[in-house]
Amino acid sequence: MEKLNLKPFETTVIGHPIVQRTAPKVRVSNGDDKVTNDLKKIVQDNVKDGMTISFHHHFRNGDFVFNQVMKIIMDLGIKNLTLAPSSLTGAMNDVAIEAIKNGTVTNITTSGMRGSLGEEVSHGILKDSVIFRSHGGRARAIEEGDIKIDVAFLGVPNADRCGNANGMYGEEAFGSLGYALMDANYADKVVLLTDNLVDYPNTPAPINQTMVDYVVEVDKVGDPDKIGSGATRFTTDPKNLKIANLVSDVITNSSYFKEGFSFQTGSGGAALAVTRYLRKAMIEQNIHASFGLGGITKPMVDLLEEGLINKLMDVQDFDKAAAQSMKDNKNQQEISASWYADPDNKGAMVDQLDVAILSALEIDTDFNVNVLTGADGMIRGAVGGHQDAGTAKLTIICAPLVRGRIPSVVKSVGTAVTPGDSIDVLVTERGIAVNPNRPELIDQLKNVPGIDLCTIDELAEKAEKIVGKEEPLKFDDNTVGIVEYRDGTVIDTIKQVKD
Amino acid sequence: MEKLNLKPFETTVIGHPIVQRTAPKVRVSNGDDKVTNDLKKIVQDNVKDGMTISFHHHFRNGDFVFNQVMKIIMDLGIKNLTLAPSSLTGAMNDVAIEAIKNGTVTNITTSGMRGSLGEEVSHGILKDSVIFRSHGGRARAIEEGDIKIDVAFLGVPNADRCGNANGMYGEEAFGSLGYALMDANYADKVVLLTDNLVDYPNTPAPINQTMVDYVVEVDKVGDPDKIGSGATRFTTDPKNLKIANLVSDVITNSSYFKEGFSFQTGSGGAALAVTRYLRKAMIEQNIHASFGLGGITKPMVDLLEEGLINKLMDVQDFDKAAAQSMKDNKNQQEISASWYADPDNKGAMVDQLDVAILSALEIDTDFNVNVLTGADGMIRGAVGGHQDAGTAKLTIICAPLVRGRIPSVVKSVGTAVTPGDSIDVLVTERGIAVNPNRPELIDQLKNVPGIDLCTIDELAEKAEKIVGKEEPLKFDDNTVGIVEYRDGTVIDTIKQVKD
Repeated sequence: MEKLNLKPFETTVIGHPIVQRTAPKVRVSNGDDKVTNDLKKIVQDNVKDGMTISFHHHFRNGDFVFNQVMKIIMDLGIKNLTLAPSSLTGAMNDVAIEAIKNGTVTNITTSGMRGSLGEEVSHGILKDSVIFRSHGGRARAIEEGDIKIDVAFLGVPNADRCGNANGMYGEEAFGSLGYALMDANYADKVVLLTDNLVDYPNTPAPINQTMVDYVVEVDKVGDPDKIGSGATRFTTDPKNLKIANLVSDVITNSSYFKEGFSFQTGSGGAALAVTRYLRKAMIEQNIHASFGLGGITKPMVDLLEEGLINKLMDVQDFDKAAAQSMKDNKNQQEISASWYADPDNKGAMVDQLDVAILSALEIDTDFNVNVLTGADGMIRGAVGGHQDAGTAKLTIICAPLVRGRIPSVVKSVGTAVTPGDSIDVLVTERGIAVNPNRPELIDQLKNVPGIDLCTIDELAEKAEKIVGKEEPLKFDDNTVGIVEYRDGTVIDTIKQVKD
Repeated sequence: MEKLNLKPFETTVIGHPIVQRTAPKVRVSNGDDKVTNDLKKIVQDNVKDGMTISFHHHFRNGDFVFNQVMKIIMDLGIKNLTLAPSSLTGAMNDVAIEAIKNGTVTNITTSGMRGSLGEEVSHGILKDSVIFRSHGGRARAIEEGDIKIDVAFLGVPNADRCGNANGMYGEEAFGSLGYALMDANYADKVVLLTDNLVDYPNTPAPINQTMVDYVVEVDKVGDPDKIGSGATRFTTDPKNLKIANLVSDVITNSSYFKEGFSFQTGSGGAALAVTRYLRKAMIEQNIHASFGLGGITKPMVDLLEEGLINKLMDVQDFDKAAAQSMKDNKNQQEISASWYADPDNKGAMVDQLDVAILSALEIDTDFNVNVLTGADGMIRGAVGGHQDAGTAKLTIICAPLVRGRIPSVVKSVGTAVTPGDSIDVLVTERGIAVNPNRPELIDQLKNVPGIDLCTIDELAEKAEKIVGKEEPLKFDDNTVGIVEYRDGTVIDTIKQVKD
């Protein structure tokens, strides 16, 4: 059934609406009876047909929680569930596909999906359309009741008998609990899963006992080796290094590069390299950042420890070093997804962000960005924080002009995820295009040596010359995905791929 | 108008009700327009006749916030407000009386009041009855919507331009923001007042930008010398020392004194001395506390730093040393009033508390305790955390048998605040009475040298022998105060004193 009542996307401007927040129903307890090792009984007692259940994806590819819980749910024959995780990772694909095919799961809202699950959903296996939301959009949807979580199953690397928990200590430590804090605060029932029951009271406790109904001891919550991306490696690919260098040049020659500026980077090779180039410019020009935001990486922690960044505002940690440092650096502040990016609150971090360096699968000549579907029309990505960080004063997309035979710059993106209005600059190794709605940025960059400004149409033409004209993809009528803009309007839909 | 729809108190047992939490209405903002020095305009734009406004009392007798705001409200002629502060301190008395007398304030809910305000209210100057709530009861009332705060005015010793703030840094630092966190999370509008605007982003931020509408710069938020009680002084009064020693003996000879026990003390001279005696026993018997709770004092910080207490769970700081140590000791954990003591959540700290050492103005032969009205019937105290900590497994009231010509142990308390069901032991310098509903405690204590067990009736008789039979007080019919038990039921009412 399509959600035809959703409004179409109109503008990136949020304004000053007055919104009524929602709140959970609480089953009162004195906290004495929370610990159990009987996950099956907890599921049986609390999950019913038609409910909405949630998970976080902070364990990433090392997650053991989703599969444990979903297998029990399937064994019990519970049906018609809505899955509302913060995102779905590869570790969950096989079980998610099984749960969809046998009718256990009939609705999904997520930031993204990849691999076999993306392909199967693109082929129409889910009864209803997936709703794709950004991290800030999910926070908004939860806070306003668009997503009403009945039971949240949250894996944690430590917890005490009453449910005080953090993401910082324990074998499977992942650092910030940013996304999971939404579930912990708003779900009616919160079930923690842990393999590391610690002394009461456990602190710090971003998830505290007042939010938690059950603490379930399990054998393992995750595989430590697959949680972070391990040691951070800089790209050695010359094309990526060139793009990174150009991105750094765009930033340092813009009016935003000044004492107290702020920035967010992703975890890709080019983004990590940008941080390295930016560091050099910051030292040379004696410029310090007020904060670094987002998924935190080791290069950002290095800048914090060097005194080049004052604060890291941390909604998740992309690598082990970043996760480790949260407990050591008091200036690495854990923030919830709401504080990070909910557009409907009294100011999120992204509203204060100067510079965002983001990636793209595709960007079109109106600067609309696709980070969700591939050139074959398959779902193979995630909205993530893309729409959210896109609100930065200077949003830079970095992408190679083509990837093999696939163009990154196109006439029209397969799926519009982040609206072109919020994108300011596209940096490719073959030229840099500034959004025409930012004439002052063009002025700042047009005479900078090494910055080769062109129009985005020119870049699209260059790409077409290399890879040839694209064949338009063919789709079935069935809508398999609805992409919300962060404010809850619909920015695009994803159709079923034709076999 | 009396709140006649309130249910009478029945039991201290909370059980497992399912309660719907409430949530604020949020005016969306990107956070860029929060800072102002025009407090008058903020009041004018946001406070309307009949609204509920709130304040915290973390500045205690050094508070400059309440008076600044209330004077503007009176100047603007705003009427019929409900005052819902966490408590009212002496610094607020004159202005509060004026605001009541001119009709600006017609309703009050608070933890307590003292001095001239207590006397005036006892004489019936307020249109409606004051509702007295414990700290946990206020948290419950806010979370369930019994108190709906329209505008909270919260003084902070630091804040950035978007409203990130804590209580730990700045000239008027007071440590934990525990009570104020309720207002920050649940009020529709949150106005911070500060004299210390710091760089963005300010961390840690127990109050963060997503909760704050305005940051108002004022000359001073408080008088640092009157915020804490200054240097902690141990009592030298022999009677107090004797009581403290006996309390320590009761604790250390009970079954609760074992590795990992937990306790809460107040800030009175006897309570501080208890901590000193307890320390000695802990060292001698190699016993460590899992946590100390409550209003934190320097003697508790000393135990933390000595390794005798593992964690301090800190809802407020009673002295400067405790406030200072919160930023230095990572095991001194800030907790909200809800986490501290809301009876209607998934477990509060007080639910896990082994030993509470509390004071009393009066205790009657059913162990009911009065901490709110004096022997003359005047309001001169506060519920505070008394009812909340009273739920500890071993709740000890310490009080001298008589104070001057006023008996502490009586046949019937003037105002029942904490029900006798939750009180386990009364320690006086003239004898110790154990609640008959705790026969196992009597067994544990009856053969301990120095512990002189008697019945509470015997203590009441001893007191009467010293001070003579009490004249029953005479009251008018008008109800000036309603005392809620922490669950929202009415445990007693306070009548207007006869002149």
